[in-house]
Amino acid sequence: MGDDGSVRAGLSSHHDGSALYVPEQAPRLGETVAVFLRGPADVRRVYVRSTPDGEPRFAEAAVERRDPNGDVWWRGEIEVRNPVTSYRFLLDGSGGRRWLTALGEIAHDVPDDTDFRLVAYDPPPEWARDAVVYQIFPDRFARSAAAAERTPPHWAIPCEWDTPVVGSGPETSSQLYGGDLDGIASRLDHLDRLGVNTVYLTPIFPARSNHRYDAASFDHVDPLLGGDAALARLADAVHRRGWRLLGDITSNHTGDAHPWFTSAVSDPASPERELFYFDEDGAYESWCGVTSLPKLDWGSAELRRRFADGPDSVLARWLRAPYGLDGWRVDVANMTGRRGADAYTHDVARLLRRAVTTARPDGLILAEHGHDYTRDLDADGWHGTMNYPGFTDPVWSWLLAEGVRLPNFLGVPGGVRRRDGLDVLATMRAFASRVSWRSFTHSWQLLSSHDSARIRSVVGDASRHEVAAGLVCTLPGTPMIFAGDELGLRGENGEASRTPMPWDRPQSWDGATFARYQQLIALRRAEPALRDGGLRWVHAEADTLVFLREAASGSVLVLARRAPGTPVRLVGLPGGDNVYGGAPALSPDAEGAITLPGDGPTFQAWHLP
Amino acid sequence: MGDDGSVRAGLSSHHDGSALYVPEQAPRLGETVAVFLRGPADVRRVYVRSTPDGEPRFAEAAVERRDPNGDVWWRGEIEVRNPVTSYRFLLDGSGGRRWLTALGEIAHDVPDDTDFRLVAYDPPPEWARDAVVYQIFPDRFARSAAAAERTPPHWAIPCEWDTPVVGSGPETSSQLYGGDLDGIASRLDHLDRLGVNTVYLTPIFPARSNHRYDAASFDHVDPLLGGDAALARLADAVHRRGWRLLGDITSNHTGDAHPWFTSAVSDPASPERELFYFDEDGAYESWCGVTSLPKLDWGSAELRRRFADGPDSVLARWLRAPYGLDGWRVDVANMTGRRGADAYTHDVARLLRRAVTTARPDGLILAEHGHDYTRDLDADGWHGTMNYPGFTDPVWSWLLAEGVRLPNFLGVPGGVRRRDGLDVLATMRAFASRVSWRSFTHSWQLLSSHDSARIRSVVGDASRHEVAAGLVCTLPGTPMIFAGDELGLRGENGEASRTPMPWDRPQSWDGATFARYQQLIALRRAEPALRDGGLRWVHAEADTLVFLREAASGSVLVLARRAPGTPVRLVGLPGGDNVYGGAPALSPDAEGAITLPGDGPTFQAWHLP
Repeated sequence: MGDDGSVRAGLSSHHDGSALYVPEQAPRLGETVAVFLRGPADVRRVYVRSTPDGEPRFAEAAVERRDPNGDVWWRGEIEVRNPVTSYRFLLDGSGGRRWLTALGEIAHDVPDDTDFRLVAYDPPPEWARDAVVYQIFPDRFARSAAAAERTPPHWAIPCEWDTPVVGSGPETSSQLYGGDLDGIASRLDHLDRLGVNTVYLTPIFPARSNHRYDAASFDHVDPLLGGDAALARLADAVHRRGWRLLGDITSNHTGDAHPWFTSAVSDPASPERELFYFDEDGAYESWCGVTSLPKLDWGSAELRRRFADGPDSVLARWLRAPYGLDGWRVDVANMTGRRGADAYTHDVARLLRRAVTTARPDGLILAEHGHDYTRDLDADGWHGTMNYPGFTDPVWSWLLAEGVRLPNFLGVPGGVRRRDGLDVLATMRAFASRVSWRSFTHSWQLLSSHDSARIRSVVGDASRHEVAAGLVCTLPGTPMIFAGDELGLRGENGEASRTPMPWDRPQSWDGATFARYQQLIALRRAEPALRDGGLRWVHAEADTLVFLREAASGSVLVLARRAPGTPVRLVGLPGGDNVYGGAPALSPDAEGAITLPGDGPTFQAWHLP
Repeated sequence: MGDDGSVRAGLSSHHDGSALYVPEQAPRLGETVAVFLRGPADVRRVYVRSTPDGEPRFAEAAVERRDPNGDVWWRGEIEVRNPVTSYRFLLDGSGGRRWLTALGEIAHDVPDDTDFRLVAYDPPPEWARDAVVYQIFPDRFARSAAAAERTPPHWAIPCEWDTPVVGSGPETSSQLYGGDLDGIASRLDHLDRLGVNTVYLTPIFPARSNHRYDAASFDHVDPLLGGDAALARLADAVHRRGWRLLGDITSNHTGDAHPWFTSAVSDPASPERELFYFDEDGAYESWCGVTSLPKLDWGSAELRRRFADGPDSVLARWLRAPYGLDGWRVDVANMTGRRGADAYTHDVARLLRRAVTTARPDGLILAEHGHDYTRDLDADGWHGTMNYPGFTDPVWSWLLAEGVRLPNFLGVPGGVRRRDGLDVLATMRAFASRVSWRSFTHSWQLLSSHDSARIRSVVGDASRHEVAAGLVCTLPGTPMIFAGDELGLRGENGEASRTPMPWDRPQSWDGATFARYQQLIALRRAEPALRDGGLRWVHAEADTLVFLREAASGSVLVLARRAPGTPVRLVGLPGGDNVYGGAPALSPDAEGAITLPGDGPTFQAWHLP
């Protein structure tokens, strides 16, 4: 930071996994690929360190070119020796010798866990890079005319569409609002106006709850949702718009009404017995002790066969015509295959991925992970994860409204606490630096889901909601929007936030918030740098975060403020036009600095050449 | 730090894996164990977070007792649900909410990689805890009378005992000095005077080099060393003193004279062909491209059988009578089983460990690891590692003599650079925090080896050498002393440091250094806290490191200074007698502070009640 409070954007060295720095985005085993580093002028020598077959190797980099602002671009080469080839840079210059890893510059030695990574496994499908996901909880999104004709099942508490959602207690999972798949198909124009292009449905198999995470079958779509034919109609409608449709699969457990489980219970000699964890007394393992959710034993070859072997397997069959799901979100992936001494998680992830990509090479498989996912990615399994700890949690804690006490989140006692920008940035970097750029950018960045409070209840008002939505649409990763957030709906916890969409009460919609989501999604689609550009953090303080998304086609400079503060002066960046938020264009002053406005809360973006 | 520059030793919370904090040192799957936290008085609530089966779980801790100095001891419980059960603490108090992991207190969220760990696998043998290892390079340690009778092999350049060692070039691996196993047996009194109790021999199998890492057989001891019978005699002599004897096994490669390899080359249909990596043209993979060291393919079931299956396997046979090795150091463990897409390392480690512990339950298996070992421990394989990156490297960079330019170390271009105490501490903690306490304390802390420069050449003089030796003997981990370091021998790189022991030139010995090693080893044996106590870092600045080893039987406060500086005032610690270094006893002043002297370089230790 300069004496005048200005920040020189190019002051420290930078590398990330984007195409500016790693032109070969799908490296293959045995190839040698170029990697680029942008360094300040004081750097005299640069080495690339990789660890082929477990032993460190250093290769000197050479100067490729010098930027007008003084930055020097270095070019190094790495052999893609292992499926995950980790690397870092060694910089030597007047600032002393230091490492550059995905966590930034470090003056002391550190283990490899924050090294950059080249991943030689098949990349995720191309469409995922441009996806904007819209999450729908089918019971609460929209009802078709047929919904009224259906007889509610014995477990259900039938509800009118405007019945208040009960967020906790025995009624929570039984309130049945009757949303169905044809209802969703009838509302796709809403999604189109918003600008999303990928629909993710929470489970659609028969169950004994409104959330359907207690599957009673994997063979048919719940008749309450319209059955198999309704899924085919919805898939067709989605695909005709050029969009994608994702399902939700429970690989950790079934419901206790599932015939696999009822057979296993009633007949210990049945082939289904080995699919679950029974002890000698007939007791069985279940998800977090909830006995209606018996846990699957992935040590069973039969389970692997049923889930993943061949075109009629659970995973593959729904990816074929006439349904043609484009992939799966995998429920409780963090626990799947883990139980005591059993550690099958990575095997299962690889198996399920192969089942998906064999069925359709452009299929996506994305993990729900309720915890630290950093050791579960980059293993030829999940293409990405729902980034709760590295995105949702830090954004919440930064934008949390004063006085709001939310119940625990990610299980942490005492709930969400307010944190300053530097802590928020440290959290984001801690997680992002421990996975490959590919896994980071293919993970879902979300503000809310059916498992969390809604972002509006977290941040309290529309202005901070805009900042949050801005971060979702401009930071790397796939934006995932929980249906209703774009209307400013509220919910204090995961169950309470499963609010029916207020189609018949447009006066309740927060139209300004909807318009901001529209603009932010459109901005993301208009600016390639926001979809696959690099990420350089430029400035952080308690109330302000500033970052650059960089691409050959031009960069986007983003300012996020949760409160007003001192204008931020940046040296070393060109000027540019505002492309979101309405602030003036930026142009360098006599000292070559640009100044970002001090108003807040605000979210602003500028296109830089 | 206080306004007067004093440091309150108990200021921050602390936990480590030692018995003070984790009374159950060998937890078993399914048990619930107590863990203790020492926290400052401001902490109001403490939770223990574990992640059973991949999902976080919080359990509130309760106050166990309050120390007179204001520290509060909290007691929490953890179910040992998985073979490696990671955990951390959540502290809530006037200082805000923060995590405590093995890296210390952290105010933002971080992934689990620095969590504490309970490991439910079988623990290392008990004797390892008290081991002080003495490394012998057999060709250079001592000759028996029989040595003169032997005919040098064709590859050897026979050398007189005082011929200078050639540290690089074609002669380096061919200079044969003729040290042998009976020579070692004849010099055990020297080891006894020094105080060590475990002898580690670099390879003793026939080969075509003086280092013998290019094994030409695993079936016999090199006749140049005296053959099998000499090993039996040495083992007997070592064991009669109550000591242990360790071998060195090359699991990554053989030499190209090994009959496995010559068969594989001469007959592609031979059963040995699959033990190595041949391509279609007959080219083969070798260690770092050195073609005399063909790499073993651990995908081969036959290789696994030969190395590890049954009492006559390579690993097991030498652990039986009459040899009775007490375990193995595993050469290039970091590369073993790693090659391109092959990633058998953890499988191999488990296999070799099982081979060792099946042959003898008190057997030790310790990995050479030339790189970041943190993901290769705690996996039911290696009991520990040679801690180059987390000990040797930081100690070297802290104590490096002015003006000394050592060739590269651990392959880093530009060689060792001088670093300050805070960076050194950060490096030590970065590595130690990413493995279990058990693996940390069972890894070898070394200042030199046959693969590095000698510590005396790194630090330049006897006073800093004393500081280095002090750290080896007082920090957690198994001290490993490279034969000759205790005499102040020099060597600028790994090869040059393979100096013959100057038995006949006692005038060349640095007797003061020898005496310091003696005293430091004796101190370690006298103070239980130095063998299995906890570790609390109390103070660090550029030239000074202060830490406490804590045990129920009393603690040891250690001061290491590489240069003179300001005396360090510590509040919150009792006084105590000096037990090494000769500084005055410590007693609290009127404000309750103790003051550590400012002289330097120095190494001092005090016993605290």
